[in-house]
Amino acid sequence: MKKISVVLSGCGHRDGAEITEAVSLMINLSKAGASIEYFAPNLNISPVNHLTGEIAKAEKRNVLIESARISRGKSKDLILLNPNEFDALIFVGGSGVAKNLSSWSTQGANCEILPEIQSAIESFYKKSKPIGAICISPVLLAKVLGGNKVKLTIGNDKETIAEIEKTGAIHIECDVDDCVVDKENKIVTTPAYMYDERPDKIFEGISKFAKEIIKLI
Amino acid sequence: MKKISVVLSGCGHRDGAEITEAVSLMINLSKAGASIEYFAPNLNISPVNHLTGEIAKAEKRNVLIESARISRGKSKDLILLNPNEFDALIFVGGSGVAKNLSSWSTQGANCEILPEIQSAIESFYKKSKPIGAICISPVLLAKVLGGNKVKLTIGNDKETIAEIEKTGAIHIECDVDDCVVDKENKIVTTPAYMYDERPDKIFEGISKFAKEIIKLI
Repeated sequence: MKKISVVLSGCGHRDGAEITEAVSLMINLSKAGASIEYFAPNLNISPVNHLTGEIAKAEKRNVLIESARISRGKSKDLILLNPNEFDALIFVGGSGVAKNLSSWSTQGANCEILPEIQSAIESFYKKSKPIGAICISPVLLAKVLGGNKVKLTIGNDKETIAEIEKTGAIHIECDVDDCVVDKENKIVTTPAYMYDERPDKIFEGISKFAKEIIKLI
Repeated sequence: MKKISVVLSGCGHRDGAEITEAVSLMINLSKAGASIEYFAPNLNISPVNHLTGEIAKAEKRNVLIESARISRGKSKDLILLNPNEFDALIFVGGSGVAKNLSSWSTQGANCEILPEIQSAIESFYKKSKPIGAICISPVLLAKVLGGNKVKLTIGNDKETIAEIEKTGAIHIECDVDDCVVDKENKIVTTPAYMYDERPDKIFEGISKFAKEIIKLI
Protein backbone atom coordinates (compact mmCIF):
# COMPACT_ATOMS: atom_id res chain seq x y z
CA MET A 1 0.00 0.00 0.00
CA LYS A 2 1.32 3.45 -0.94
CA LYS A 3 1.81 5.74 2.05
CA ILE A 4 1.21 9.44 1.45
CA SER A 5 1.95 12.32 3.82
CA VAL A 6 -0.45 15.23 3.43
CA VAL A 7 0.26 18.66 4.94
CA LEU A 8 -2.69 20.74 6.18
CA SER A 9 -2.39 24.36 7.32
CA GLY A 10 -5.57 24.59 9.43
CA CYS A 11 -9.27 24.19 8.59
CA GLY A 12 -10.91 26.69 6.23
CA HIS A 13 -9.62 28.53 3.18
CA ARG A 14 -9.32 32.00 4.72
CA ASP A 15 -6.90 31.06 7.53
CA GLY A 16 -6.05 27.42 6.94
CA ALA A 17 -6.44 24.52 4.51
CA GLU A 18 -9.12 24.67 1.81
CA ILE A 19 -11.67 22.08 2.95
CA THR A 20 -13.08 20.93 -0.42
CA GLU A 21 -9.56 20.43 -1.76
CA ALA A 22 -8.48 18.44 1.32
CA VAL A 23 -11.55 16.18 1.14
CA SER A 24 -11.30 15.73 -2.66
CA LEU A 25 -7.70 14.60 -2.17
CA MET A 26 -8.67 12.26 0.68
CA ILE A 27 -11.41 10.60 -1.39
CA ASN A 28 -9.24 10.13 -4.48
CA LEU A 29 -6.19 8.78 -2.62
CA SER A 30 -8.46 6.45 -0.64
CA LYS A 31 -10.07 5.23 -3.89
CA ALA A 32 -6.59 4.49 -5.25
CA GLY A 33 -5.94 2.30 -2.20
CA ALA A 34 -3.33 4.63 -0.67
CA SER A 35 -3.07 5.33 3.05
CA ILE A 36 -2.75 8.92 4.27
CA GLU A 37 -1.15 10.52 7.30
CA TYR A 38 -1.89 14.17 8.00
CA PHE A 39 0.62 16.68 9.33
CA ALA A 40 0.20 20.30 10.39
CA PRO A 41 2.32 22.87 12.23
CA ASN A 42 1.80 23.20 15.98
CA LEU A 43 1.41 26.98 16.04
CA ASN A 44 -1.25 29.48 17.10
CA ILE A 45 -3.00 31.94 14.83
CA SER A 46 -5.80 34.50 15.05
CA PRO A 47 -8.76 32.98 13.18
CA VAL A 48 -10.59 34.67 10.29
CA ASN A 49 -14.39 34.84 10.45
CA HIS A 50 -15.33 33.02 7.22
CA LEU A 51 -18.65 34.90 6.95
CA THR A 52 -17.25 38.44 7.24
CA GLY A 53 -13.52 38.12 6.53
CA GLU A 54 -12.65 39.85 9.82
CA ILE A 55 -9.66 38.65 11.86
CA ALA A 56 -10.46 37.92 15.53
CA LYS A 57 -7.21 39.36 16.84
CA ALA A 58 -7.90 38.58 20.50
CA GLU A 59 -8.64 34.91 19.80
CA LYS A 60 -6.04 32.18 19.28
CA ARG A 61 -6.49 28.82 17.60
CA ASN A 62 -3.94 26.07 17.06
CA VAL A 63 -3.32 25.08 13.44
CA LEU A 64 -2.58 21.43 14.30
CA ILE A 65 -5.73 21.06 16.43
CA GLU A 66 -7.97 22.79 13.87
CA SER A 67 -6.59 20.63 11.04
CA ALA A 68 -7.84 17.58 12.97
CA ARG A 69 -11.40 18.68 12.08
CA ILE A 70 -10.62 17.66 8.50
CA SER A 71 -8.61 14.52 9.35
CA ARG A 72 -11.15 13.28 11.92
CA GLY A 73 -8.65 13.51 14.77
CA LYS A 74 -5.67 12.03 12.94
CA SER A 75 -3.34 15.01 12.40
CA LYS A 76 0.24 14.84 13.67
CA ASP A 77 2.72 17.57 14.52
CA LEU A 78 4.69 18.54 11.40
CA ILE A 79 8.00 18.02 13.25
CA LEU A 80 7.19 14.27 13.29
CA LEU A 81 7.08 13.99 9.48
CA ASN A 82 9.79 11.49 8.50
CA PRO A 83 10.30 11.32 4.71
CA ASN A 84 11.72 7.78 5.00
CA GLU A 85 8.27 6.53 6.05
CA PHE A 86 6.34 7.88 3.05
CA ASP A 87 6.17 7.42 -0.71
CA ALA A 88 5.01 10.96 -1.50
CA LEU A 89 4.38 14.39 0.00
CA ILE A 90 1.30 16.49 -0.82
CA PHE A 91 0.31 20.05 0.11
CA VAL A 92 -3.35 21.15 0.17
CA GLY A 93 -4.20 24.78 -0.74
CA GLY A 94 -5.89 27.53 1.25
CA SER A 95 -4.61 30.81 2.69
CA GLY A 96 -2.93 28.86 5.50
CA VAL A 97 -0.20 27.95 2.97
CA ALA A 98 0.63 31.63 2.44
CA LYS A 99 0.05 32.71 6.07
CA ASN A 100 0.88 29.75 8.36
CA LEU A 101 3.36 27.62 6.39
CA SER A 102 5.09 30.66 4.88
CA SER A 103 4.86 34.44 4.69
CA TRP A 104 4.04 34.35 0.93
CA SER A 105 0.81 36.36 1.43
CA THR A 106 2.79 39.47 2.41
CA GLN A 107 6.26 38.83 0.93
CA GLY A 108 5.75 36.74 -2.22
CA ALA A 109 8.98 35.29 -3.60
CA ASN A 110 10.94 36.92 -0.74
CA CYS A 111 8.91 35.00 1.84
CA GLU A 112 10.19 32.90 4.69
CA ILE A 113 8.87 29.39 5.07
CA LEU A 114 8.69 27.11 8.11
CA PRO A 115 11.98 25.17 8.43
CA GLU A 116 10.04 21.86 8.68
CA ILE A 117 8.35 22.62 5.34
CA GLN A 118 11.66 23.56 3.72
CA SER A 119 13.39 20.39 4.92
CA ALA A 120 10.44 18.13 4.01
CA ILE A 121 10.41 19.45 0.43
CA GLU A 122 14.20 19.15 0.12
CA SER A 123 14.23 15.66 1.53
CA PHE A 124 11.44 14.20 -0.66
CA TYR A 125 13.03 15.86 -3.68
CA LYS A 126 16.52 14.42 -2.96
CA LYS A 127 15.03 10.95 -2.45
CA SER A 128 13.26 11.28 -5.81
CA LYS A 129 9.88 10.78 -4.16
CA PRO A 130 6.96 12.64 -5.79
CA ILE A 131 5.75 15.94 -4.38
CA GLY A 132 2.26 17.25 -5.12
CA ALA A 133 0.82 20.71 -4.50
CA ILE A 134 -2.74 22.00 -4.90
CA CYS A 135 -4.04 25.57 -5.48
CA ILE A 136 -1.65 28.20 -4.02
CA SER A 137 0.67 25.64 -2.38
CA PRO A 138 2.96 25.25 -5.44
CA VAL A 139 4.51 28.57 -4.29
CA LEU A 140 6.22 26.54 -1.54
CA LEU A 141 7.83 24.29 -4.19
CA ALA A 142 8.83 27.33 -6.26
CA LYS A 143 10.47 28.93 -3.22
CA VAL A 144 12.48 25.82 -2.27
CA LEU A 145 13.09 24.22 -5.68
CA GLY A 146 12.85 27.17 -8.10
CA GLY A 147 16.60 27.02 -8.72
CA ASN A 148 16.08 23.53 -10.20
CA LYS A 149 13.72 25.01 -12.80
CA VAL A 150 10.78 22.89 -11.65
CA LYS A 151 7.64 23.13 -13.79
CA LEU A 152 4.40 23.86 -11.98
CA THR A 153 1.03 25.62 -12.13
CA ILE A 154 -1.20 27.82 -10.01
CA GLY A 155 -3.69 28.26 -12.86
CA ASN A 156 -3.61 31.60 -14.69
CA ASP A 157 -3.35 34.35 -12.04
CA LYS A 158 -0.89 36.84 -13.55
CA GLU A 159 0.34 38.43 -10.33
CA THR A 160 1.11 35.12 -8.64
CA ILE A 161 2.73 33.77 -11.83
CA ALA A 162 5.06 36.81 -12.00
CA GLU A 163 6.05 36.26 -8.38
CA ILE A 164 6.64 32.52 -8.91
CA GLU A 165 8.86 33.18 -11.92
CA LYS A 166 11.20 35.28 -9.74
CA THR A 167 12.23 32.00 -8.03
CA GLY A 168 13.42 30.39 -11.27
CA ALA A 169 10.48 27.98 -11.37
CA ILE A 170 8.73 27.59 -14.75
CA HIS A 171 5.00 28.32 -14.66
CA ILE A 172 2.61 26.49 -17.01
CA GLU A 173 -1.00 27.71 -17.32
CA CYS A 174 -3.56 25.03 -16.53
CA ASP A 175 -7.36 24.68 -16.36
CA VAL A 176 -9.20 23.90 -13.13
CA ASP A 177 -10.02 20.31 -14.15
CA ASP A 178 -6.46 19.42 -15.14
CA CYS A 179 -2.97 19.18 -13.63
CA VAL A 180 0.66 19.74 -14.63
CA VAL A 181 3.18 16.90 -14.34
CA ASP A 182 6.92 17.62 -14.21
CA LYS A 183 8.10 14.03 -14.73
CA GLU A 184 11.80 14.80 -14.45
CA ASN A 185 11.42 16.48 -11.06
CA LYS A 186 8.49 14.29 -9.97
CA ILE A 187 6.28 17.28 -9.23
CA VAL A 188 2.51 17.38 -9.82
CA THR A 189 0.35 20.52 -9.37
CA THR A 190 -3.31 21.43 -9.93
CA PRO A 191 -4.93 24.90 -9.61
CA ALA A 192 -8.22 24.00 -7.85
CA TYR A 193 -9.66 27.07 -6.04
CA MET A 194 -7.18 29.43 -7.73
CA TYR A 195 -10.26 29.52 -10.00
CA ASP A 196 -13.71 30.51 -8.69
CA GLU A 197 -15.20 27.27 -10.01
CA ARG A 198 -17.77 24.59 -9.23
CA PRO A 199 -16.83 22.00 -6.58
CA ASP A 200 -17.14 19.11 -9.05
CA LYS A 201 -14.56 20.81 -11.31
CA ILE A 202 -12.18 21.15 -8.34
CA PHE A 203 -12.79 17.44 -7.63
CA GLU A 204 -12.06 16.50 -11.25
CA GLY A 205 -8.70 18.32 -11.25
CA ILE A 206 -7.67 16.76 -7.94
CA SER A 207 -8.78 13.33 -9.18
CA LYS A 208 -6.34 13.58 -12.12
CA PHE A 209 -3.68 15.02 -9.82
CA ALA A 210 -3.97 12.08 -7.37
CA LYS A 211 -3.69 9.52 -10.19
CA GLU A 212 -0.50 11.21 -11.49
CA ILE A 213 1.08 11.23 -8.04
CA ILE A 214 0.39 7.49 -7.63
CA LYS A 215 1.88 6.79 -11.09
CA LEU A 216 5.12 8.55 -10.14
CA ILE A 217 5.69 6.46 -6.99
CA MET B 1 -31.76 24.49 -12.15
CA LYS B 2 -32.73 22.57 -9.01
CA LYS B 3 -32.27 24.59 -5.83
CA ILE B 4 -31.28 22.63 -2.74
CA SER B 5 -31.12 23.91 0.84
CA VAL B 6 -28.44 22.16 2.93
CA VAL B 7 -28.35 22.45 6.73
CA LEU B 8 -24.93 22.42 8.43
CA SER B 9 -24.48 22.24 12.21
CA GLY B 10 -20.94 23.65 12.46
CA CYS B 11 -17.59 22.50 11.07
CA GLY B 12 -16.11 19.20 12.26
CA HIS B 13 -17.73 15.89 13.24
CA ARG B 14 -17.20 16.14 17.01
CA ASP B 15 -19.11 19.41 17.56
CA GLY B 16 -20.56 20.29 14.15
CA ALA B 17 -21.11 19.01 10.62
CA GLU B 18 -19.05 16.07 9.34
CA ILE B 19 -16.72 17.68 6.80
CA THR B 20 -16.20 14.79 4.36
CA GLU B 21 -19.96 14.22 4.19
CA ALA B 22 -20.65 17.92 3.56
CA VAL B 23 -18.05 18.12 0.79
CA SER B 24 -19.13 14.82 -0.80
CA LEU B 25 -22.67 16.17 -0.95
CA MET B 26 -21.49 19.51 -2.39
CA ILE B 27 -19.49 17.79 -5.15
CA ASN B 28 -22.30 15.42 -6.14
CA LEU B 29 -25.05 18.05 -6.18
CA SER B 30 -22.78 20.38 -8.14
CA LYS B 31 -22.05 17.58 -10.64
CA ALA B 32 -25.82 17.07 -11.05
CA GLY B 33 -26.13 20.77 -11.95
CA ALA B 34 -28.01 21.73 -8.78
CA SER B 35 -27.40 24.97 -6.89
CA ILE B 36 -26.95 24.86 -3.12
CA GLU B 37 -27.65 27.31 -0.33
CA TYR B 38 -26.28 26.56 3.12
CA PHE B 39 -28.08 27.26 6.39
CA ALA B 40 -26.93 26.89 10.00
CA PRO B 41 -28.25 27.98 13.38
CA ASN B 42 -26.93 31.25 14.80
CA LEU B 43 -26.00 29.91 18.26
CA ASN B 44 -22.85 29.62 20.34
CA ILE B 45 -21.27 26.38 21.52
CA SER B 46 -18.14 25.29 23.39
CA PRO B 47 -15.88 23.67 20.77
CA VAL B 48 -14.46 20.16 21.03
CA ASN B 49 -10.72 19.69 20.45
CA HIS B 50 -10.74 17.23 17.54
CA LEU B 51 -7.32 15.83 18.50
CA THR B 52 -8.09 15.04 22.15
CA GLY B 53 -11.89 15.03 22.38
CA GLU B 54 -11.81 17.58 25.23
CA ILE B 55 -14.46 20.31 25.39
CA ALA B 56 -13.04 23.84 25.75
CA LYS B 57 -15.72 25.01 28.17
CA ALA B 58 -14.42 28.57 28.50
CA GLU B 59 -14.37 29.12 24.72
CA LYS B 60 -17.36 29.97 22.56
CA ARG B 61 -17.77 29.56 18.81
CA ASN B 62 -20.75 30.42 16.64
CA VAL B 63 -22.23 27.50 14.67
CA LEU B 64 -23.28 29.70 11.73
CA ILE B 65 -19.86 31.34 11.43
CA GLU B 66 -17.96 28.04 11.75
CA SER B 67 -20.19 26.40 9.12
CA ALA B 68 -19.02 29.10 6.67
CA ARG B 69 -15.59 27.37 6.68
CA ILE B 70 -17.23 24.53 4.73
CA SER B 71 -19.45 26.72 2.51
CA ARG B 72 -16.64 29.18 1.68
CA GLY B 73 -18.43 32.09 3.31
CA LYS B 74 -21.91 31.35 1.98
CA SER B 75 -23.84 30.12 5.04
CA LYS B 76 -27.08 31.86 6.01
CA ASP B 77 -28.92 32.03 9.31
CA LEU B 78 -31.32 29.09 9.61
CA ILE B 79 -34.22 31.46 10.41
CA LEU B 80 -33.96 32.70 6.79
CA LEU B 81 -34.69 29.27 5.29
CA ASN B 82 -37.86 29.65 3.20
CA PRO B 83 -39.17 26.27 1.92
CA ASN B 84 -40.99 28.00 -0.96
CA GLU B 85 -37.60 28.92 -2.47
CA PHE B 86 -36.15 25.39 -2.61
CA ASP B 87 -36.82 22.06 -4.28
CA ALA B 88 -35.37 19.91 -1.51
CA LEU B 89 -33.95 19.98 2.03
CA ILE B 90 -30.84 18.03 3.07
CA PHE B 91 -29.18 17.49 6.46
CA VAL B 92 -25.46 16.64 6.73
CA GLY B 93 -24.32 14.38 9.61
CA GLY B 94 -21.86 15.00 12.46
CA SER B 95 -22.35 15.36 16.22
CA GLY B 96 -23.68 18.88 15.67
CA VAL B 97 -26.97 17.26 14.59
CA ALA B 98 -27.35 15.59 17.97
CA LYS B 99 -25.90 18.47 20.02
CA ASN B 100 -26.67 21.75 18.21
CA LEU B 101 -29.77 21.03 16.11
CA SER B 102 -31.32 18.81 18.78
CA SER B 103 -30.59 17.25 22.16
CA TRP B 104 -30.58 13.70 20.70
CA SER B 105 -27.05 13.00 22.05
CA THR B 106 -28.32 13.07 25.65
CA GLN B 107 -32.06 12.43 25.30
CA GLY B 108 -32.54 10.19 22.24
CA ALA B 109 -36.15 9.88 21.12
CA ASN B 110 -37.22 12.23 23.95
CA CYS B 111 -35.00 15.01 22.58
CA GLU B 112 -35.96 18.57 21.84
CA ILE B 113 -35.11 19.99 18.44
CA LEU B 114 -34.65 23.57 17.28
CA PRO B 115 -38.04 25.04 16.27
CA GLU B 116 -36.58 26.16 12.90
CA ILE B 117 -35.52 22.56 12.17
CA GLN B 118 -38.94 21.21 13.20
CA SER B 119 -40.82 23.68 11.00
CA ALA B 120 -38.47 23.22 8.02
CA ILE B 121 -38.98 19.43 8.06
CA GLU B 122 -42.76 19.79 8.48
CA SER B 123 -42.98 22.36 5.70
CA PHE B 124 -40.95 20.46 3.06
CA TYR B 125 -42.88 17.29 3.95
CA LYS B 126 -46.28 18.96 3.59
CA LYS B 127 -45.24 20.46 0.25
CA SER B 128 -44.19 16.99 -0.93
CA LYS B 129 -40.64 18.21 -1.54
CA PRO B 130 -37.89 15.62 -0.93
CA ILE B 131 -35.94 15.59 2.33
CA GLY B 132 -32.54 13.93 2.58
CA ALA B 133 -30.53 13.08 5.69
CA ILE B 134 -26.98 11.73 6.01
CA CYS B 135 -25.32 9.76 8.85
CA ILE B 136 -26.97 10.51 12.26
CA SER B 137 -29.24 13.26 10.89
CA PRO B 138 -32.15 10.90 10.01
CA VAL B 139 -32.94 11.01 13.76
CA LEU B 140 -34.32 14.51 13.13
CA LEU B 141 -36.73 13.09 10.53
CA ALA B 142 -37.69 10.24 12.87
CA LYS B 143 -38.42 12.72 15.67
CA VAL B 144 -40.62 14.98 13.50
CA LEU B 145 -42.15 12.47 11.05
CA GLY B 146 -41.96 9.16 12.95
CA GLY B 147 -45.76 9.19 13.37
CA ASN B 148 -46.05 8.98 9.57
CA LYS B 149 -44.07 5.72 9.63
CA VAL B 150 -41.31 7.12 7.44
CA LYS B 151 -38.66 4.60 6.31
CA LEU B 152 -35.06 5.56 6.90
CA THR B 153 -31.57 4.31 7.80
CA ILE B 154 -28.67 5.18 10.07
CA GLY B 155 -26.78 2.01 9.03
CA ASN B 156 -26.74 -0.84 11.53
CA ASP B 157 -26.07 0.67 14.99
CA LYS B 158 -28.41 -1.27 17.29
CA GLU B 159 -28.71 1.34 20.07
CA THR B 160 -29.59 4.17 17.71
CA ILE B 161 -32.00 1.94 15.77
CA ALA B 162 -33.84 1.03 19.00
CA GLU B 163 -34.14 4.72 19.86
CA ILE B 164 -35.35 5.63 16.35
CA GLU B 165 -38.05 2.92 16.45
CA LYS B 166 -39.55 4.53 19.56
CA THR B 167 -40.66 7.42 17.31
CA GLY B 168 -42.70 5.17 15.02
CA ALA B 169 -40.24 5.52 12.14
CA ILE B 170 -39.28 2.28 10.35
CA HIS B 171 -35.55 1.58 10.27
CA ILE B 172 -33.99 -0.28 7.34
CA GLU B 173 -30.39 -1.52 7.63
CA CYS B 174 -28.12 -0.20 4.88
CA ASP B 175 -24.46 -0.48 3.84
CA VAL B 176 -22.13 2.53 3.80
CA ASP B 177 -22.05 2.76 -0.01
CA ASP B 178 -25.82 2.66 -0.44
CA CYS B 179 -28.92 4.64 0.53
CA VAL B 180 -32.57 4.03 1.48
CA VAL B 181 -35.37 5.66 -0.54
CA ASP B 182 -38.86 6.06 0.93
CA LYS B 183 -40.60 7.03 -2.31
CA GLU B 184 -44.02 7.53 -0.75
CA ASN B 185 -42.73 10.03 1.82
CA LYS B 186 -39.97 11.40 -0.45
CA ILE B 187 -37.27 10.71 2.10
CA VAL B 188 -33.72 9.58 1.23
CA THR B 189 -31.10 8.58 3.83
CA THR B 190 -27.53 7.21 3.74
CA PRO B 191 -25.41 6.04 6.72
CA ALA B 192 -21.98 7.52 5.78
CA TYR B 193 -19.79 7.89 8.91
CA MET B 194 -22.18 5.85 11.04
CA TYR B 195 -19.65 3.29 9.77
CA ASP B 196 -15.91 3.64 10.41
CA GLU B 197 -15.19 3.36 6.69
CA ARG B 198 -12.93 4.67 3.93
CA PRO B 199 -13.67 8.18 2.60
CA ASP B 200 -14.29 6.88 -0.94
CA LYS B 201 -17.01 4.56 0.43
CA ILE B 202 -18.66 7.53 2.18
CA PHE B 203 -18.47 9.41 -1.12
CA GLU B 204 -20.04 6.49 -3.02
CA GLY B 205 -23.04 6.32 -0.66
CA ILE B 206 -23.57 10.08 -0.81
CA SER B 207 -23.24 10.01 -4.61
CA LYS B 208 -26.16 7.53 -4.84
CA PHE B 209 -28.07 9.54 -2.22
CA ALA B 210 -27.71 12.81 -4.19
CA LYS B 211 -28.92 11.13 -7.41
CA GLU B 212 -32.03 9.80 -5.63
CA ILE B 213 -32.85 13.22 -4.17
CA ILE B 214 -32.63 14.81 -7.63
CA LYS B 215 -34.88 12.06 -9.09
CA LEU B 216 -37.57 12.80 -6.49
CA ILE B 217 -37.77 16.53 -7.29
